[in-house]
Amino acid sequence: MRIALAQINSVVGGITENTRRIRLAIERARDADAQLVVFPELAVIGYPPRDLLLKPAVIDSCVRAVDELAAACTDIAAIIGYPCPTGLAKGMPLYNAAALCHHGRVTHRYAKSLLPTYDVFDEHRYFEPGPRTDVADLSGCPLGVSICEDLWNDQEVMPRQLYHGDPIEDLSRAGARVLINCSASPFVVGKHDFRLRLLQSAAQRNKIPVVFCNQVGGNDELVFDGNSCVIDSDGRVLAHAKDFQEDLLIADVPIDGQAPPASSRVESPKTGIESAYHALVLGLRDYCGKCGFKSTLLGLSGGIDSAVTAALTVAALGPQQVRGVAMPSRYSSEGSLTDAAELAQRLGIRFQTIPIDDAHGALERMLTPHFEGLPPDATEENIQARIRGVILMALSNKFGSLLVSTGNKSELAVGYCTLYGDMAGGLAILSDVPKTLVFELAKWINDSPDSPLRQQFGSPVIPDSSITKPPSAELRPDQTDQDSLPPYELLDQIIERYVEREQSSQQIITEVPGVDPATVARVIRLIDLNEYKRKQAAPGLKITGRAFGFGRRMPIAQQYDSSFTPNPSSNANSNSPR
Amino acid sequence: MRIALAQINSVVGGITENTRRIRLAIERARDADAQLVVFPELAVIGYPPRDLLLKPAVIDSCVRAVDELAAACTDIAAIIGYPCPTGLAKGMPLYNAAALCHHGRVTHRYAKSLLPTYDVFDEHRYFEPGPRTDVADLSGCPLGVSICEDLWNDQEVMPRQLYHGDPIEDLSRAGARVLINCSASPFVVGKHDFRLRLLQSAAQRNKIPVVFCNQVGGNDELVFDGNSCVIDSDGRVLAHAKDFQEDLLIADVPIDGQAPPASSRVESPKTGIESAYHALVLGLRDYCGKCGFKSTLLGLSGGIDSAVTAALTVAALGPQQVRGVAMPSRYSSEGSLTDAAELAQRLGIRFQTIPIDDAHGALERMLTPHFEGLPPDATEENIQARIRGVILMALSNKFGSLLVSTGNKSELAVGYCTLYGDMAGGLAILSDVPKTLVFELAKWINDSPDSPLRQQFGSPVIPDSSITKPPSAELRPDQTDQDSLPPYELLDQIIERYVEREQSSQQIITEVPGVDPATVARVIRLIDLNEYKRKQAAPGLKITGRAFGFGRRMPIAQQYDSSFTPNPSSNANSNSPR
Repeated sequence: MRIALAQINSVVGGITENTRRIRLAIERARDADAQLVVFPELAVIGYPPRDLLLKPAVIDSCVRAVDELAAACTDIAAIIGYPCPTGLAKGMPLYNAAALCHHGRVTHRYAKSLLPTYDVFDEHRYFEPGPRTDVADLSGCPLGVSICEDLWNDQEVMPRQLYHGDPIEDLSRAGARVLINCSASPFVVGKHDFRLRLLQSAAQRNKIPVVFCNQVGGNDELVFDGNSCVIDSDGRVLAHAKDFQEDLLIADVPIDGQAPPASSRVESPKTGIESAYHALVLGLRDYCGKCGFKSTLLGLSGGIDSAVTAALTVAALGPQQVRGVAMPSRYSSEGSLTDAAELAQRLGIRFQTIPIDDAHGALERMLTPHFEGLPPDATEENIQARIRGVILMALSNKFGSLLVSTGNKSELAVGYCTLYGDMAGGLAILSDVPKTLVFELAKWINDSPDSPLRQQFGSPVIPDSSITKPPSAELRPDQTDQDSLPPYELLDQIIERYVEREQSSQQIITEVPGVDPATVARVIRLIDLNEYKRKQAAPGLKITGRAFGFGRRMPIAQQYDSSFTPNPSSNANSNSPR
Repeated sequence: MRIALAQINSVVGGITENTRRIRLAIERARDADAQLVVFPELAVIGYPPRDLLLKPAVIDSCVRAVDELAAACTDIAAIIGYPCPTGLAKGMPLYNAAALCHHGRVTHRYAKSLLPTYDVFDEHRYFEPGPRTDVADLSGCPLGVSICEDLWNDQEVMPRQLYHGDPIEDLSRAGARVLINCSASPFVVGKHDFRLRLLQSAAQRNKIPVVFCNQVGGNDELVFDGNSCVIDSDGRVLAHAKDFQEDLLIADVPIDGQAPPASSRVESPKTGIESAYHALVLGLRDYCGKCGFKSTLLGLSGGIDSAVTAALTVAALGPQQVRGVAMPSRYSSEGSLTDAAELAQRLGIRFQTIPIDDAHGALERMLTPHFEGLPPDATEENIQARIRGVILMALSNKFGSLLVSTGNKSELAVGYCTLYGDMAGGLAILSDVPKTLVFELAKWINDSPDSPLRQQFGSPVIPDSSITKPPSAELRPDQTDQDSLPPYELLDQIIERYVEREQSSQQIITEVPGVDPATVARVIRLIDLNEYKRKQAAPGLKITGRAFGFGRRMPIAQQYDSSFTPNPSSNANSNSPR
């Protein structure tokens, strides 16, 4: 059976635009003589639609859009994801559904059975789990249609089965000859390998081919990598779409041990640091495009974070759309300004220098009388960062440009950043990139033969000194990050264990060779205490298993004390340290 | 049966402190000869614990705490809410449980069956629904233990049953002689009336008494009002605890048509504007206390929002803990400064004046050359608001005081506020209070005989002119809010219908008499466009059915166009307006 996988980039809520893309893909699939074209999960409304799903008018539009699309499916069939009312008097009011459209109408409807409600997913908030359904019939061939998470309860591959049923097995037992999975599975570095194992396990255990169609594109914090593919019943990759861009993959899928088809297109998915780079570029490009921003700006400190951010921004939008602003203070080294200027020159972006001294001096004169003789502390450092925030936001407002903020995950974790200062911005593209990975990214961008910027400019775009000099916030004389923080190699390990793996301090101390227990305790305390800053952080782009933001929901006013012991006598005076 | 309802104020994550409070309440209940003492939902860890529940070490601490508490329950029984592992190989790993502790051990464990996953609730993110359980036996009396939402699927009271089962009915059928409900049901104006109807319906339909023990106190965005009570099998309120404070309510609950007991204490719950006032005061007081802030500060503009915020802050913490800062600009009227000073004087708070002109002038000189001859616009207004943000945050940093921000829900809805400017702060106590309700609050605070501030100061604390003058941001000459916005009476109606009720523009136009369709479209467009500001807003205190913040999760980069029509020909050029 010739099947087209329409890996489209849906706009959340953009029902008109998404419907146009779906219609176009149907036509192209028809032109390629496909019998069936498959779309991603919730393709009509884009994933994740979040609380747009609570608006009855939105659901009504989606249902009408699918009806209209079905009418166009006469000589080809299509499977289209959309939210639809359950029609039941009780329970959550919607299904996360996929319609099989054929003969000009919806001939079958599948409702997602397993509803992910963890990390960035909130599906129980909107949807009723689908009842077990029959296979769909397409001109005599029984199709097993499933949606995304339905595939993710595999007893052999998943470390824990979060659900009690296995819809894939059910569909296979019900006689499906091919499994279709409509997905919106967001990018995480290394995840596609895991996904392939899942797909292969489903194919091999049930001895049927699997067709996996995934959304592509950035929607707020999430980037979808595409990587749609077809796995044959022996678990081999038969066809594979591109990653990080729209694609229409045509594959002849052998049903019931048909002869293997003429070879299909098999693209190689990017991995590791290269995949992270492309995810960040796509996430930024789509955030701008889908919000309607034509240009961006960012502060250039001469350091590595802003250099990598600038490079990614140029990769996403082109140098004409990027404005770099250096804002030196009395504490800035000369090297910082020249590194910033050099970066801007190499990238070919607009560059402006706005020294902050005048405003800095004015605010000092205004505030010092009110500080009641208290000694200088982080307050004075924050003022400088916030003046820069005011300047960048003024330029953002005046030119209608998106302010891209430059902070990394390590800083955000321990609060080594200023709320309303360097944290200001519309999108924080490095906020899920640990500092050690920022260094790797910088080197990859500069030196890898696969680096698009290296290819485009023919030489390294990031000045070497931005990579090699010791990181510093330059908010007081001779400051370096390492005055306040443990070395980044160690810090990032602790963050990864505490934030991504939910390890306790005890576990971290046991498992990280030679780590100082006081350092672990201090880092954990900083992570907990700075929840209030992250609550007001700009949205970031998720590339790890656990990003700050939507997928990590910590209380602010909380007093969990990992040293808790329930023995009352020993705790008589032990109020929590916060 | 004599039952004690221990309406405690749990600290999220504060297992040591919560365990201490629970132990104390057990002792007091024993002293009052109660046979049973009932605690709120998840009392050991506080509600909502959010992603603390993902930390195995946290769960382990909770389980150990309950074991330890159970050991203390020898001559009295206690029902204590806590998270506990399911012990099952599949499914979500935790139950939202309540342990019946008696004879020095846990004798029965109930797991919550209905898991709210809407608005501010995320329980499917953590918990496995409990299997139907047997009734618990307490010295021969069958108790029907349930947890919060288990009560909220009543077919007669709920507009829609979100769940398929009714655990209350199940427990009653299984022979329960008294229903116990451990709750953490957050405050919304008017909600307790609805809760009482639910409790009465449960009692009457099942002909058994209902014991409802609710958490009290503020945890981040949520305020819990307490209002624990006992309803007899005829649906009458037999005993009622205080609202907005800890309480231990002792009630003799008649089992199986026993003679009605000697009368118990029945407190009157506060309603309407008075309840909103107390919720805001408690929410702020607990946010400060649980975060460890001893003092607060806020900007005083002379307007009504900052006046009401200052009054609430004084009510929460006392005048000694509040610093008011006036930051006049060249556009401030003289009245603004005198109103601010008058307010501070009446409330007895510290008052400082820091004119922003020097920084304003400096930033103008720094930025104007970079504005490329573009005309003045909102940029220049935002700069002033952001300078004030820098000043307030500097004082907050220097004195370790919580910056309380003063914006209201109407502004936040339509983006009539400056990100990193007047939106800066640690808690936005009016961010769920529409402007029309801010006016009502001001009048109630000034004039009501029930107003604690009126009682304390003996005269109105808010200057009359702050209430009566036309609201203005004073960011350009002769500006008033009504230059940019529809009248607040109308604006608040549209916001309430669009945000709280999820009505479409068409519905609003139809149902609001005489409203201009263009006004509705403009307000809705402003609400949608300003999602990016709200994403970075300070946490607020929820008092309505739908607050901005945790319970409203809208995409930022989205293009829903309420004028969508799926007809392709008419949409050829209709890209979304954003």
